[in-house]
Amino acid sequence: MLKPVNVGLLGLGTVGAGTVTVLSRNREVIAGRAGRGIQVVQAASRDVNKIRSCTLDGITLTQNVMAVVESPDIDVIVELMGGVELARQAILKAIANGKHVVTANKHLIALHGNEIFRAAREKGVMVAFEAAVAGGIPIIKALREGLAGNRIESVAGIINGTGNFILTEMRDTPRDFAQVLAEAQALGYAEADPGFDVDGIDAAHKLTILASIAFGVPLQFEKVYTEGIAQITSMDVNYAQALGYSIKHLGIARRTPQGIEMRVHPTLIPYRRLIANVDGVMNAVLVKADAVGNTLYYGAGAGAEPTASAIVADLVDVVRTLTTDPENRVPHLAFQPDALSDTPILPMDQVETAYYLRLQAHDEPGVLAEVTRILADHHISIEAVLQKEPAAGESSVPVIMLTQRTLENNMNHAIERIHALPTVMGKVLRIRLEHLS
Amino acid sequence: MLKPVNVGLLGLGTVGAGTVTVLSRNREVIAGRAGRGIQVVQAASRDVNKIRSCTLDGITLTQNVMAVVESPDIDVIVELMGGVELARQAILKAIANGKHVVTANKHLIALHGNEIFRAAREKGVMVAFEAAVAGGIPIIKALREGLAGNRIESVAGIINGTGNFILTEMRDTPRDFAQVLAEAQALGYAEADPGFDVDGIDAAHKLTILASIAFGVPLQFEKVYTEGIAQITSMDVNYAQALGYSIKHLGIARRTPQGIEMRVHPTLIPYRRLIANVDGVMNAVLVKADAVGNTLYYGAGAGAEPTASAIVADLVDVVRTLTTDPENRVPHLAFQPDALSDTPILPMDQVETAYYLRLQAHDEPGVLAEVTRILADHHISIEAVLQKEPAAGESSVPVIMLTQRTLENNMNHAIERIHALPTVMGKVLRIRLEHLS
Repeated sequence: MLKPVNVGLLGLGTVGAGTVTVLSRNREVIAGRAGRGIQVVQAASRDVNKIRSCTLDGITLTQNVMAVVESPDIDVIVELMGGVELARQAILKAIANGKHVVTANKHLIALHGNEIFRAAREKGVMVAFEAAVAGGIPIIKALREGLAGNRIESVAGIINGTGNFILTEMRDTPRDFAQVLAEAQALGYAEADPGFDVDGIDAAHKLTILASIAFGVPLQFEKVYTEGIAQITSMDVNYAQALGYSIKHLGIARRTPQGIEMRVHPTLIPYRRLIANVDGVMNAVLVKADAVGNTLYYGAGAGAEPTASAIVADLVDVVRTLTTDPENRVPHLAFQPDALSDTPILPMDQVETAYYLRLQAHDEPGVLAEVTRILADHHISIEAVLQKEPAAGESSVPVIMLTQRTLENNMNHAIERIHALPTVMGKVLRIRLEHLS
Repeated sequence: MLKPVNVGLLGLGTVGAGTVTVLSRNREVIAGRAGRGIQVVQAASRDVNKIRSCTLDGITLTQNVMAVVESPDIDVIVELMGGVELARQAILKAIANGKHVVTANKHLIALHGNEIFRAAREKGVMVAFEAAVAGGIPIIKALREGLAGNRIESVAGIINGTGNFILTEMRDTPRDFAQVLAEAQALGYAEADPGFDVDGIDAAHKLTILASIAFGVPLQFEKVYTEGIAQITSMDVNYAQALGYSIKHLGIARRTPQGIEMRVHPTLIPYRRLIANVDGVMNAVLVKADAVGNTLYYGAGAGAEPTASAIVADLVDVVRTLTTDPENRVPHLAFQPDALSDTPILPMDQVETAYYLRLQAHDEPGVLAEVTRILADHHISIEAVLQKEPAAGESSVPVIMLTQRTLENNMNHAIERIHALPTVMGKVLRIRLEHLS
């Protein structure tokens, strides 16, 4: 058997410790598959004296990230520090030193992947990032390799476990967003600053990566439309359920004749779809492609060992292709660099989707007629209306409508006019609806 | 760009035509990913004059399979003839001629894969078979590569679309097995001779392959326990549903301390599991592994273009690794040949599982006590009992029981004793039950 491959680990937090644990516990099956051993020999950590949930036998610890990146003993760098700037510098330096890189850093790849992959190509090294999207689900591999024969039409994913946990709890317990968020924070599912998760930024990073490898376009994080879940109430979750839908926080990328849609927002999905039944912290990605049709990939999207599972798979892939000509390796963004296209990304107002609308209206005759007239003026067809009785002592009622597909631009104009109606109180809540068939 | 890779196709039936269509329609995206073109230049077909649903431009047709296999112009052979003996000879000859092979032939791989892979290793060529299991779902790739860091614990799959269609219809319409089978035959989902599908043979072929690559053992089709779905009635489907379960025809492979289980049989699954909601002709495979936990892969398990999707993915993989040292390629059975283990396969009576039992008993006091006493004698705990009122004019009633996990051997002895009870009529129907948690 060939000599083991030496790995230098940057970051010994949860995922770093998980990676050390998995590589050590499964040493034999991993070597049995890869044809050679894979061992962590150096690790950089801010606090080298911290007690960790993994054995550090045979691993030289340092606080100096760059010392690992510069070490001549290291074949592959695994970057698990998180954050952007230091990680970017460390990875670019590792590449310059001819080392291959495995990273779980979606934030970094979404923002600086184009630069990093260019540098890697010039040096003939690999940068693997399966762990950056949907944790342990091998979705990057499925899209780049498993569906290589397909023209991919769309990708729709539950790609943030915290958001999905919150929406699932709001439905099942049922409570409102703020209460469930507090519970998620207590359970350790949500950060003290939950913005990246519940505002959809984390999902937007991942969607940026999925869209690139699905459609062969450069990474363009700044063009993702992003909307969080904070405005969803348990009332909406219940109305949606009564109408036969689940509300999920989806990242959606779709190819249309006009361009590519990239959007993260709460979405009603028919309850019969498999992805509508993906609950709790679990992730799933639904891919629609021309030859294979719909395929779905489900699993844990975060956590120490699920993420380590993806890291180790990348390490095995890197080990296998160490002696392969760089041009025969799987391209970073699925397509050969000269085959990337400059297909435009559609602005959100050019996206077509169906809608769930909830508004609070005076309980008097004619209100519904006014609202439906406005929708008709903008060529928006109504699919269903749910009008509730006013609560005791209330003079206003919630009105819920499902519409057929229309341009977001039409809906924006219609909502503007509905807001101007004296019989409608407050803002119209709009949740997009996708049939995903 | 490198010169195109020349493919010789054996078999121009549904999947053969689908493969030609996908390679032609998606020529550009495939070359954009693979870095070179992939083109079918020769095809062997029994009837060269038959009109086909694909264009045959640029393809030389022949009736002579061996002429394609011997052609010096061909780099890769795609075998889509089906059947065993001629396909085996053609593939072995292609290998002897130094050609790589892609096949969808699960029957052949399950029976002769060990021989074929040995020959391929000796010649340093690849034999790829993603299309042999679960059609377009990239499950071979997920198991061999995507989960390479894991010790795999179990695989449970709906891997025969015909069987799943029949069970879904029995639940939804509801009708009995024979009626739905007739409909499936009329729709073209089931063959005129449906034995391979409904008796579980086809699923057993696929399970043989999944078990090998999951656990690193040789292909051992003859050791799979196989039971079909013909004895399931719509009554059982309904009772299962009332108790919170779906009945699915599962292929299950599981690692236990005593050995490896390989079994295909109807199975009750809790309705809340995602895989219990995989309906109609769709396939899904649930994999439990130590690091990643549960992951699920869902999609079309058959059909011209879904199968072609897997064929083309294999072709792209083969093209990428043409210049790779053979020892750095992904091993056929996931593990390096010297890392394959001789872990025993457990006989069915050593398998542990829970059970659904249905028996027809005289409607008189004490019957239930007799049955439960027998189960207790064999250390089998009862989870739930459902006893129905007798139908008008009937003196016997159906009794349904769910048991906790026990050895199949215990259950065999218990059922033998129940059969001897004078108050119990006919045979006990036993359906295994798995929680898949």
